[in-house]
Amino acid sequence: MSRRRRIYEGKAKILYEGPEPGTLVQYFKDDASAFNNQKKGTITGKGVLNNRISEYLMVKLGEIGVPTHFVRRLNMREQLVREVEIIPIEVVIRNVVAGSLSQRFGMAEGAALPRSIVEYYYKSDELGDPMVSEEHITAFGWASPQDLDDMLSLSLRTNDFLTGLFLGVGLRLVDFKVEFGRLYENEEMRIVLADEISPDSCRLWDVKTNEKLDKDRFRRDLGGVAEAYQEVARRLGILPEGGPRDLKGPSTMQ
Amino acid sequence: MSRRRRIYEGKAKILYEGPEPGTLVQYFKDDASAFNNQKKGTITGKGVLNNRISEYLMVKLGEIGVPTHFVRRLNMREQLVREVEIIPIEVVIRNVVAGSLSQRFGMAEGAALPRSIVEYYYKSDELGDPMVSEEHITAFGWASPQDLDDMLSLSLRTNDFLTGLFLGVGLRLVDFKVEFGRLYENEEMRIVLADEISPDSCRLWDVKTNEKLDKDRFRRDLGGVAEAYQEVARRLGILPEGGPRDLKGPSTMQ
Repeated sequence: MSRRRRIYEGKAKILYEGPEPGTLVQYFKDDASAFNNQKKGTITGKGVLNNRISEYLMVKLGEIGVPTHFVRRLNMREQLVREVEIIPIEVVIRNVVAGSLSQRFGMAEGAALPRSIVEYYYKSDELGDPMVSEEHITAFGWASPQDLDDMLSLSLRTNDFLTGLFLGVGLRLVDFKVEFGRLYENEEMRIVLADEISPDSCRLWDVKTNEKLDKDRFRRDLGGVAEAYQEVARRLGILPEGGPRDLKGPSTMQ
Repeated sequence: MSRRRRIYEGKAKILYEGPEPGTLVQYFKDDASAFNNQKKGTITGKGVLNNRISEYLMVKLGEIGVPTHFVRRLNMREQLVREVEIIPIEVVIRNVVAGSLSQRFGMAEGAALPRSIVEYYYKSDELGDPMVSEEHITAFGWASPQDLDDMLSLSLRTNDFLTGLFLGVGLRLVDFKVEFGRLYENEEMRIVLADEISPDSCRLWDVKTNEKLDKDRFRRDLGGVAEAYQEVARRLGILPEGGPRDLKGPSTMQ
């Protein structure tokens, strides 16, 4: 493998310069972190699974007309994506009370919400990804009102589609986080879904048992973390052929 | 069973006066018709299955915030619904070329559409449910521009959710028809999903084999009609306990 320029390294992924201008290679690591990097660990095979799961979800979202940065999966741990200008806002869509919402408002995890709730977090490791309002986002210029409109409507469509899809495979989409980027093409700009969608970024509970099949198993030391990610891929019908044996792959770049 | 006032009898359903004001009982028959009533037949167990399938889909749509007329299922063939003022427009959402679109534009069935397409049909047996435009609908007062806005946005949300849900159970939502009604409550009016959502009103193809699991099996004499409806219910996890044996139920009101 040739040496490629590393553009960015995050907690769970690395971005490399892509094979042609305007593209990047997104590499999925097995590394996991939580609580703003205070907890760290490794989930064997996570990168391979998230690469597949995110590919599947982005392709299917593309098919219903939600634009994404995804181009194609390259190999077990890498996918080709369009280079976008990442908007430094994490959009969280919540359908059921869980996680920080439960803590912040003292609400029981699992309680129904009166309607789906959208939250925005400013992406900043130093600040601990603080929650922000639309006022902050537009006043500080992180996104324009039109950007935000597009982000909101794409987030809600994504929520409707993924809620249905996961319900079909016996999973409740409790909440999830998405990121967006500005894609410049033919002298036009449009907002597209970026980053990844996977059990790292979604809370997924079994519809019947409420068993957690997502990163909360890692955050809360519930065990069976890798198995939970595998189960999500299996239910979506995209578990790699060789099954768990094939999930190791090269865990770091050669 | 007491004699209830019959409000309306359609090809596949009967509406009776409900147990309390503002409600109706929707009874699902096994009768099937196609091509504006030129073809008629019976699909054993269809009413029982459509009652369940429509219940499930309306409940799940309600949970994501799409308002519907559905209250609760009463028994094998009946459900309680809110009384609404039906808007005489069938809204058809198409994701893949099929049926009348294929014929009208000479496009191959199964071809992808550049994006999902919404069509409106005026409900009129005498006229053969002609296709109409938004101009006709608002000019003739069948629905106001605000009604139409609500109908369109609810139709698109329904499409996103159902496309995901059916994909999760290995079915492609090729197209479907919905109807809406005006629900008057607390001196306010809102548009809600009405009628039913079932293999009578959806085209559903197996994702892998493209096998049709919907009313086209009846329209085109493909055989296995009842089995196809059962398969849809089975995949959604809602096939009645007793399975096919229990699907007969009383096929007409006592």
